[in-house]
Amino acid sequence: MTDQRDTMSPPPALRAGVDLGGTKIAAVILDEHHRVLGRARMETPQLGGPRKVLDAVAASVLSALQDAGAASIDLGSIGVGSPGAVDAAQGTISHASNVSGFDKPVAAAAELQTRLGKPVRLGNDVGVAVEAEARLGAGRRLNSFLGVWWGTGVGGGVILDGRRWLGRGHAGEFGHTLVKKNGAQCPCGLKGCLEAYAGRLAMEKRARKLAAQGRKTVLFDLMEKKASDRLSSGIWDKALEKEDRVAQEITARACEALGLAMASVVNLLDLDGVVLGGGLGGRLGPRCLPAIESALQRQLFVPEKPPKLLLSELGDEAGAIGAALVAR
Amino acid sequence: MTDQRDTMSPPPALRAGVDLGGTKIAAVILDEHHRVLGRARMETPQLGGPRKVLDAVAASVLSALQDAGAASIDLGSIGVGSPGAVDAAQGTISHASNVSGFDKPVAAAAELQTRLGKPVRLGNDVGVAVEAEARLGAGRRLNSFLGVWWGTGVGGGVILDGRRWLGRGHAGEFGHTLVKKNGAQCPCGLKGCLEAYAGRLAMEKRARKLAAQGRKTVLFDLMEKKASDRLSSGIWDKALEKEDRVAQEITARACEALGLAMASVVNLLDLDGVVLGGGLGGRLGPRCLPAIESALQRQLFVPEKPPKLLLSELGDEAGAIGAALVAR
Repeated sequence: MTDQRDTMSPPPALRAGVDLGGTKIAAVILDEHHRVLGRARMETPQLGGPRKVLDAVAASVLSALQDAGAASIDLGSIGVGSPGAVDAAQGTISHASNVSGFDKPVAAAAELQTRLGKPVRLGNDVGVAVEAEARLGAGRRLNSFLGVWWGTGVGGGVILDGRRWLGRGHAGEFGHTLVKKNGAQCPCGLKGCLEAYAGRLAMEKRARKLAAQGRKTVLFDLMEKKASDRLSSGIWDKALEKEDRVAQEITARACEALGLAMASVVNLLDLDGVVLGGGLGGRLGPRCLPAIESALQRQLFVPEKPPKLLLSELGDEAGAIGAALVAR
Repeated sequence: MTDQRDTMSPPPALRAGVDLGGTKIAAVILDEHHRVLGRARMETPQLGGPRKVLDAVAASVLSALQDAGAASIDLGSIGVGSPGAVDAAQGTISHASNVSGFDKPVAAAAELQTRLGKPVRLGNDVGVAVEAEARLGAGRRLNSFLGVWWGTGVGGGVILDGRRWLGRGHAGEFGHTLVKKNGAQCPCGLKGCLEAYAGRLAMEKRARKLAAQGRKTVLFDLMEKKASDRLSSGIWDKALEKEDRVAQEITARACEALGLAMASVVNLLDLDGVVLGGGLGGRLGPRCLPAIESALQRQLFVPEKPPKLLLSELGDEAGAIGAALVAR
């Protein structure tokens, strides 16, 4: 027995995690102590369908491995966090309308396994990011918290007793918490959702409306200067730095909606904390935390016991690290 | 050993449960199979402070025991469900402003133990009622559900994997889920809570306002006829039966708010179901379920997977039965 063990090589200890987004693919390599040994970032192919996209995902893993100074033989398994509807058991992704060809079901796990020769597991992008915060980030000292991923939309995840609550598989849609009955139109088709006030898309729509009404703002000048076609989190940050009134108003409205919706959840679940991440959360979080906290505090049923409001600690790597955690 | 066991009498198997309310005290006696063997109901003393109230609680237990054809020696333990802030570990009740003298802390468990000679445990009134539905009522086939107790206020409880989620001890305040930011004034001091649209108190306030504006309604005639000082659930039911327009409008507004707030919770937690109970829930539930369900369905993020919306099966005994379940 002892001899046999000595001659067996240990299983490969490294895990890869990939955060597949509509514009970027981020990959990390984690060792068994959850240290990030290597990373890679690339643009998501906008054309070419699933084949091109999965080729890029595989390339990002190999590039991150190289960055870690490791080889394919050191890699044990791979995790992928994806937008859309992820069926982890089946290894498929669908309804990811911002990734080329992923609106229809794609057998992503099997396809990537063929390309990389290692087992692949899928997870929901925001869900795995929130789990990463729970295990390694701002949530690691909290028994229960709401993860709020503030970006183009508003995603979420609920950690209870240290584990993510999945419900029947669709839990976490914090962006579709009601903020105002029969209120603003949400991109999801419903009315009055948090995302209709705080999502980047909704904020941009409102900025265009106010500009069309003749309000002065630097937002669109900054967009042209960056040769961008959208108001990115960086542009919002810049406009706030320049004390642009329109940007201030819209951001204040978003922060109020975020804080009020957080309070609804805390009133029901009495959570230890709220962790704010995502593209806008990472960029505007430090600046916006007081306004969010003030709205949250205002709407608490038990104001003497407010939850801790914390910023994500893993930043824009939370998704890739979380994906690595679901691997194997 | 065998001899000794044979000569020992078995521990008393019956449990008493008491639902302490602002107007009524209800008690039940349960056997080890959770069958209700006896019951008692009495008015809550409106004056005289904790001593009088606890005397009445003790009397209700003895009366229910008698109804069960049992004696004090058969009783193993007692559970009490109470409004206000219940500290189960300390055995105290406080902030129960609608029970005489219970606004300040009362050592209810110890006091009742002295009166009845049996161990007493306390629980939150709505919380234990929701647990009773989970174990013995409408929720027994659901892995996870939101219990909604629709009455003077709107209480709640969240059952996850069959167990009530307590958070840091204050979970369940579903009545203070936001329905409209900066909306109607809630009795709790906040604005736009569900309870500000759907609580019996809020509904009565709105009825008085509409009547003062000259709207015709039978609500207050019914109240006078019943020599009541408030619009009870029975009066609302009667007015709806008579197709009173004001009652219909206010109830529709309450049902919309209930359904929308339920949808917010289901979007976040993806629960199997929602169970509706409480005074108004029991009385108006059958009539109101379609309107509540329609608002709930309207605001679901994943409309193809609606939760089951069910009426409480234990009715107005849920609280007393739930209290018996926390005994011992």
